[in-house]
Amino acid sequence: MLHIIFLFSLLFTASTNVLAQDFCVGDLKSSPYPSGYACKPETSVTAEDFAYSGLGVPGNTSNIIKAAVTPAFVAQFAGLNGLGLSSARLDMDVGGVIPLHTHPGADEILFVVSGRIKAGFVSSSNAVYIKVLKKGDLMVFPKGLLHFQLNVAKHSSVAIVTFNKPVPGLQILDFALFASSFPTALVEATTFLDEAQIKKLKGVLGGTG
Amino acid sequence: MLHIIFLFSLLFTASTNVLAQDFCVGDLKSSPYPSGYACKPETSVTAEDFAYSGLGVPGNTSNIIKAAVTPAFVAQFAGLNGLGLSSARLDMDVGGVIPLHTHPGADEILFVVSGRIKAGFVSSSNAVYIKVLKKGDLMVFPKGLLHFQLNVAKHSSVAIVTFNKPVPGLQILDFALFASSFPTALVEATTFLDEAQIKKLKGVLGGTG
Amino acid sequence: MLHIIFLFSLLFTASTNVLAQDFCVGDLKSSPYPSGYACKPETSVTAEDFAYSGLGVPGNTSNIIKAAVTPAFVAQFAGLNGLGLSSARLDMDVGGVIPLHTHPGADEILFVVSGRIKAGFVSSSNAVYIKVLKKGDLMVFPKGLLHFQLNVAKHSSVAIVTFNKPVPGLQILDFALFASSFPTALVEATTFLDEAQIKKLKGVLGGTG
Amino acid sequence: MLHIIFLFSLLFTASTNVLAQDFCVGDLKSSPYPSGYACKPETSVTAEDFAYSGLGVPGNTSNIIKAAVTPAFVAQFAGLNGLGLSSARLDMDVGGVIPLHTHPGADEILFVVSGRIKAGFVSSSNAVYIKVLKKGDLMVFPKGLLHFQLNVAKHSSVAIVTFNKPVPGLQILDFALFASSFPTALVEATTFLDEAQIKKLKGVLGGTG
Amino acid sequence: MLHIIFLFSLLFTASTNVLAQDFCVGDLKSSPYPSGYACKPETSVTAEDFAYSGLGVPGNTSNIIKAAVTPAFVAQFAGLNGLGLSSARLDMDVGGVIPLHTHPGADEILFVVSGRIKAGFVSSSNAVYIKVLKKGDLMVFPKGLLHFQLNVAKHSSVAIVTFNKPVPGLQILDFALFASSFPTALVEATTFLDEAQIKKLKGVLGGTG
Amino acid sequence: MLHIIFLFSLLFTASTNVLAQDFCVGDLKSSPYPSGYACKPETSVTAEDFAYSGLGVPGNTSNIIKAAVTPAFVAQFAGLNGLGLSSARLDMDVGGVIPLHTHPGADEILFVVSGRIKAGFVSSSNAVYIKVLKKGDLMVFPKGLLHFQLNVAKHSSVAIVTFNKPVPGLQILDFALFASSFPTALVEATTFLDEAQIKKLKGVLGGTG
Repeated sequence: MLHIIFLFSLLFTASTNVLAQDFCVGDLKSSPYPSGYACKPETSVTAEDFAYSGLGVPGNTSNIIKAAVTPAFVAQFAGLNGLGLSSARLDMDVGGVIPLHTHPGADEILFVVSGRIKAGFVSSSNAVYIKVLKKGDLMVFPKGLLHFQLNVAKHSSVAIVTFNKPVPGLQILDFALFASSFPTALVEATTFLDEAQIKKLKGVLGGTG
Repeated sequence: MLHIIFLFSLLFTASTNVLAQDFCVGDLKSSPYPSGYACKPETSVTAEDFAYSGLGVPGNTSNIIKAAVTPAFVAQFAGLNGLGLSSARLDMDVGGVIPLHTHPGADEILFVVSGRIKAGFVSSSNAVYIKVLKKGDLMVFPKGLLHFQLNVAKHSSVAIVTFNKPVPGLQILDFALFASSFPTALVEATTFLDEAQIKKLKGVLGGTG
Repeated sequence: MLHIIFLFSLLFTASTNVLAQDFCVGDLKSSPYPSGYACKPETSVTAEDFAYSGLGVPGNTSNIIKAAVTPAFVAQFAGLNGLGLSSARLDMDVGGVIPLHTHPGADEILFVVSGRIKAGFVSSSNAVYIKVLKKGDLMVFPKGLLHFQLNVAKHSSVAIVTFNKPVPGLQILDFALFASSFPTALVEATTFLDEAQIKKLKGVLGGTG
Repeated sequence: MLHIIFLFSLLFTASTNVLAQDFCVGDLKSSPYPSGYACKPETSVTAEDFAYSGLGVPGNTSNIIKAAVTPAFVAQFAGLNGLGLSSARLDMDVGGVIPLHTHPGADEILFVVSGRIKAGFVSSSNAVYIKVLKKGDLMVFPKGLLHFQLNVAKHSSVAIVTFNKPVPGLQILDFALFASSFPTALVEATTFLDEAQIKKLKGVLGGTG
Repeated sequence: MLHIIFLFSLLFTASTNVLAQDFCVGDLKSSPYPSGYACKPETSVTAEDFAYSGLGVPGNTSNIIKAAVTPAFVAQFAGLNGLGLSSARLDMDVGGVIPLHTHPGADEILFVVSGRIKAGFVSSSNAVYIKVLKKGDLMVFPKGLLHFQLNVAKHSSVAIVTFNKPVPGLQILDFALFASSFPTALVEATTFLDEAQIKKLKGVLGGTG
Repeated sequence: MLHIIFLFSLLFTASTNVLAQDFCVGDLKSSPYPSGYACKPETSVTAEDFAYSGLGVPGNTSNIIKAAVTPAFVAQFAGLNGLGLSSARLDMDVGGVIPLHTHPGADEILFVVSGRIKAGFVSSSNAVYIKVLKKGDLMVFPKGLLHFQLNVAKHSSVAIVTFNKPVPGLQILDFALFASSFPTALVEATTFLDEAQIKKLKGVLGGTG
């Protein structure tokens, strides 16, 4: 039936160059636009562009928080450019915690790889949803809401989180208030925290104002 | 030329019933779905469904915050159902403040109707953007980021805010932490606030845990 | 607990450069793409980029329409780039009118700052929704439908309108038909307006054809 | 290799009922929501739901406009529910015209099946784009902009148009102004058309006010 | 009333340059981004940019498949850039076939211009929907599902298909498996096709591996 | 400062009922619409709704494919309703394989929990991207493209996959062709597979036609 290689190519003569845009691997040197980075030419795209190894390495948890977040967002994993996903790895030592934070604009799903994690979020109506998750459990955090993860195992816990944006954003409450230049008086006025509390946390987190 | 009323109607015989869905005024008694409420039948829709007067009345600012937020979201203004907008009115007495909060998933634009308002937000990279806005000024707050408004005039200030969702969500930091059942120990562990600070604010905000 | 500034930074070593894209302040000199303009580098973004004062100045209504529209779209307010909102100010003298127009692709919400405005729109099924709005009232206009505003107060009226796109588009019926090069014969054929009517309005609006 | 029918089914035990939602054939008796109609149960879906014959029949052009529009929107073709497309057939006798109109929120692409059609649209900046299209030609009309089609052949012309919404909306200028209850004085005030012109067209199109 | 050309222009002084972006005709020499190509300057846009004649020419069906697909995607029709539509022409001789294929991410609607076409698709739950379509019939194929068209008339058949993306993508099953470098052993392992079958088709389709 | 519980509540009197819709936990007994299921009343939502344990249990791989897919889509995990994510667990014994398949409309990201997995996809332009992934590796599969996973370790391999839709769809090539009622002659005509090959696979997969 079938000596048709060139015949099939005739079939689609005008179209091969439009068969791209299934993906748009990001040229991270290009100027970003609201939709992301420029697409690398298809001819220079390889399988390496669609894979990323960085989440296979435990993050460095030798810190007070005893935790680490290792991102696989567009900046690390250019194949995500223009697609609707990104991931990160959470490592928590005994007593480790990922402090209260939000992802503006992205939903998150968490999978417990090992350990036991207490995780939760607060809704706009101040309802609190907290679960203790064991290995293999999933939890979902609707976009933009404050949430946290805490290791409640007697050993390390590891989780993988995935977002439905290539850059989910990450606003950590403590950083926003106390590691920034957000003036103390304004923090006080807009949160009712005591000045002493604010100064103390700004002192340790390196914030100014 | 033109005895065509019935002729034009013939032109579109089959189609009149599909000419709806320019809008979908919400039947607030229906079960909500992710896209909103069921559409009121077009025959029962009137001009009243597309207008709302509630933002013409100052909110009651006789409270400690000396501020009030009056929403015009879908629940107040059913004509917004299925469209991409909602609004609210901010009233602030002298010294009044809208405490630090976010709108998960919605951008916000603020217009100063009267007075002088210091407003600002913090980004995911902890950059702080604060402006003193006068009458007629606009400020935009990208979705999901912590922001606040504070009256810095010698009299009341009023602003109108608009969001690009019919229900923008509203997570007020203090309510989430201190007016909820978010356990004190967990708040402490995930924010590094002192237990005493937390208990104090829970006490006044009526939170439990 | 808390000498953790550098420890927190270790926590997120690889990620700071991806924490942008909460916003994408437009570089208006860049080539626009369907999603907007290129993002200004975060390092050159200031609070000024998120505020705009232009709507604080009454537009010049010394014209026959006795009205003015002052836009705050992306071209005036680059901070809106990549976000989902824009605004404009409507000034109308006594008897002033914003002529019949549409915003292709954007919903609109109007807030009456002062005065009394008769506003309305027509739906795809030719239902007409007209309201007289007073100070503080809101009205919503679903995307793409013909609508107008008319000052019915004994003094000036002012309104602020907001759209759920950074560039809402603006098609003014009279301009489209009579201030353009839309040939008279074609206007006649496609609207059934009398040739004399068309020529008259083209004459005054400066249209050709 | 391969006695695996039940083995494959084991492979996906829990999942068969979620393999739906590739489509959501509309139950047109259900209450519409912003996203469309309820999904018919998959068990009652047949191939008939995905096909529609109505565009194979010429519309009745025995009217003054000498044209007809036959829609294949959701209301005629329930298989379109929840998908991103709809179509219509345009028939135009000699001298027939589809009067100036817009589709709020939907782009349109037109394919000339037979004849010669002069078609065009006006942009927000009042640029006019008019082309004479022959058999086999395509033209695209960006969403929400005024456009028209006119038969310039010596015989009938037929076109098929497709939209990127299951219900594209359809606002016909003449109907909106002259077949509705839009008060004459208001039409005059918001379009600068002469009262006599308006009354004349309202008279023939059956409008009131 | 109406010496207002310059008055109207005053009305909108600041805004003319933002009245674009109703469309964004693609500069196909620019670097593509996820949202498409850069916008040609409005001043260089003409009516030609919104029309395309390529689908008026029958494709070359002198091949074994006795069929041809002529695309009108962004690469052929730059006016589609940033809009939500594209089209193609299908020509099938007697016995011609468009082999099984999918369009990742785009829905498709097919209109039979002439002839008789047997068309169908398979859903995620393996339900098969096949219809014999005659002239004037429509059929819709939900995004991403395998589908085909086969000419069952005694003469040529022609169809026009439209997609709700400017670049719908096109994955032809036989090309993916047998005209690519997909290693034979892997094809066998992931499809259970016999090695002989795979080698045979790779041989004729020019695949390697 | 702060006896404000009821004062804060006054602050937001009218708004508590609109603070929902951060999420819309699915009532799986309701009629699905294109946007999903009806929202369970907030009062009956608990933390259980946002967590799911099903992916903690290895799937049953005692089958010829030596693999299993355990889904966590909306039907298993109602908390995903209206959000933009879902997940599944892949278990593969030695030599196990997830056969060639697509997810119409959803991107996929895979994380290797344990083992070694050869995974790949084919693009619209028939480029093949194959990687051998080890523990901790990620790979992304753009929406709608054929892809597979194969265990190349000497022991079991496990992966977690996440999609950016609550119901990603799942079209398995072999099922679509050979486990369905897709008539043999049509499969032959649209894929060029030999009749014998088709009958053989239909025989083992239980297809008809």
